[in-house]
Amino acid sequence: MKDSDEFSFLKETFKSLGNQYFDSSEIIIGPGDDAGLVKNSQDTIYSVDASVAGVHFPENLAAEHAAYRSLSTAASDVVACGGALKWVLVSLTVSNTDLCWMQDFVKGVKDFSDEYCCPILGGDLSKGKQCNIAVTVCGQLNQENFMKRSGARVGDKIFVTNELGLAKKGLEEISSNPEELNLSSKNVTKFIRPKLHFNFGQEISHLANSCIDISDGLISDLGHICEASNVGAQLNADLIPFEGEIEEALSWGDDYELCFTAASGMKSRIEALEKKHALKITQIGEIKVNLGVEVYKDGRLLTFKKTGYNHFDE
Amino acid sequence: MKDSDEFSFLKETFKSLGNQYFDSSEIIIGPGDDAGLVKNSQDTIYSVDASVAGVHFPENLAAEHAAYRSLSTAASDVVACGGALKWVLVSLTVSNTDLCWMQDFVKGVKDFSDEYCCPILGGDLSKGKQCNIAVTVCGQLNQENFMKRSGARVGDKIFVTNELGLAKKGLEEISSNPEELNLSSKNVTKFIRPKLHFNFGQEISHLANSCIDISDGLISDLGHICEASNVGAQLNADLIPFEGEIEEALSWGDDYELCFTAASGMKSRIEALEKKHALKITQIGEIKVNLGVEVYKDGRLLTFKKTGYNHFDE
Repeated sequence: MKDSDEFSFLKETFKSLGNQYFDSSEIIIGPGDDAGLVKNSQDTIYSVDASVAGVHFPENLAAEHAAYRSLSTAASDVVACGGALKWVLVSLTVSNTDLCWMQDFVKGVKDFSDEYCCPILGGDLSKGKQCNIAVTVCGQLNQENFMKRSGARVGDKIFVTNELGLAKKGLEEISSNPEELNLSSKNVTKFIRPKLHFNFGQEISHLANSCIDISDGLISDLGHICEASNVGAQLNADLIPFEGEIEEALSWGDDYELCFTAASGMKSRIEALEKKHALKITQIGEIKVNLGVEVYKDGRLLTFKKTGYNHFDE
Repeated sequence: MKDSDEFSFLKETFKSLGNQYFDSSEIIIGPGDDAGLVKNSQDTIYSVDASVAGVHFPENLAAEHAAYRSLSTAASDVVACGGALKWVLVSLTVSNTDLCWMQDFVKGVKDFSDEYCCPILGGDLSKGKQCNIAVTVCGQLNQENFMKRSGARVGDKIFVTNELGLAKKGLEEISSNPEELNLSSKNVTKFIRPKLHFNFGQEISHLANSCIDISDGLISDLGHICEASNVGAQLNADLIPFEGEIEEALSWGDDYELCFTAASGMKSRIEALEKKHALKITQIGEIKVNLGVEVYKDGRLLTFKKTGYNHFDE
């Protein structure tokens, strides 16, 4: 069988893309066989996330950005567990069979691979009506450092990294002028290339009781921690670092910052990590007995129409 | 956030589906956290495959069958490497938000999980225009038993399991009457529930030099072995077990039988495995120095218009 040009290009490119990181990830056999073969000297964690055009990113977003963002948002789960990134598997479904698009897609994958020294263990290419990028990620850690959603304790302080709301503004900027992205805008960069705090995540895993990455919105994601831990959360709106409208910033996802909880005695050690990793870390509230996530401003409980992203809300 | 009913249903169901197989698969934390946590006492293999409605299976195929088939075809790569199935991760993109559809989908996943004692490590649910089921599979084996595509040697005999061409006939039967599947037809069953020979695969891995599962068609898939091994193959059409038209049977995929090569001295040991696993195993040709896959009938070289499935052929 003569493969089509795009198929051959992708197959050949992926065979060598990121291979220089095989040894450090204990990969023995990479792409090109029926499966990739891996040694595991530590415990391993796995997660999968699909990024769908027109749902998770604008349909006309350049392939490079769609690729990088899909890998980054999927790998964010490894950060949230406290792991180091080991490898990724990419399942790409595309309607577009244009070779330029494929080359652009590969550029995004390569940039991600180089940014995080992450090998590509394998992949799959299918034709479909809509671009769908399903990314499986593997991380490694020691079991005792896995930051579970169910680990939050009453009295824990709640923290977030950096600011919320930037990705939402970035998406608006992209949507208003998709043909010419303003790559010098920190908001646009935040949307297309969310930065993952792997080193910080691994260190905070020794101090935090629970952690999650903010993909669906702070209230929704912190709600997942509360639900799994059978506790509630009280947030102080004046402490939360965000840009734009508060409801948007707390209910819109896409920022991929971390929300974690830790016993109050950990504060000074957390501040030391803040300096070491040049991250902004802000204490925004406390874990309470009463279930649910409540946001207070000047002593008044705020109510929001929307609290987070749900794929099946119409 | 109040999750939609379908979302909640799927999330809750997947939390416990197949959990009884966690221990044997060394799973410490399953679905419900940011990632699944796994110990690994053996080397591990990974592969991802997307099944897209209207491409890999008919758009109107019942969710149960779409689910089972997607898992089975993805896990087939583990068989082809000689591994034991350890877990699967399911990324589901659906346009249909019907609760009945979801329940039906879960039934297919559960059937697969029970058939192969396979836990579901995690999953992801997205909305999209087209049903897309990306399945990541993990298997385990010892490195020295990994059946590489590149292992075929000149003089190796070439074998296939069972018959080819049934899945193609099954697809035709399904397409002619999608509303009422004839589940007593061996062809229909072959298409929707391809049987995976895990135990045989693990045993043959001690004897075979190379192996592949026939997903794209015998000529195409054997071509992958030849290309990776830098050899060629000569097949005898009269020996190949198939039903229907020969060109269809050798170029159409979907059968998920195994094609493997082994030194001629292995024949009696292979015959012993044939009996033990109640599989039909047929010697169909030999690995040669000259590159390419050739099929002979009565001493004449057959030529085919199409040799295998290519997603980007129009």
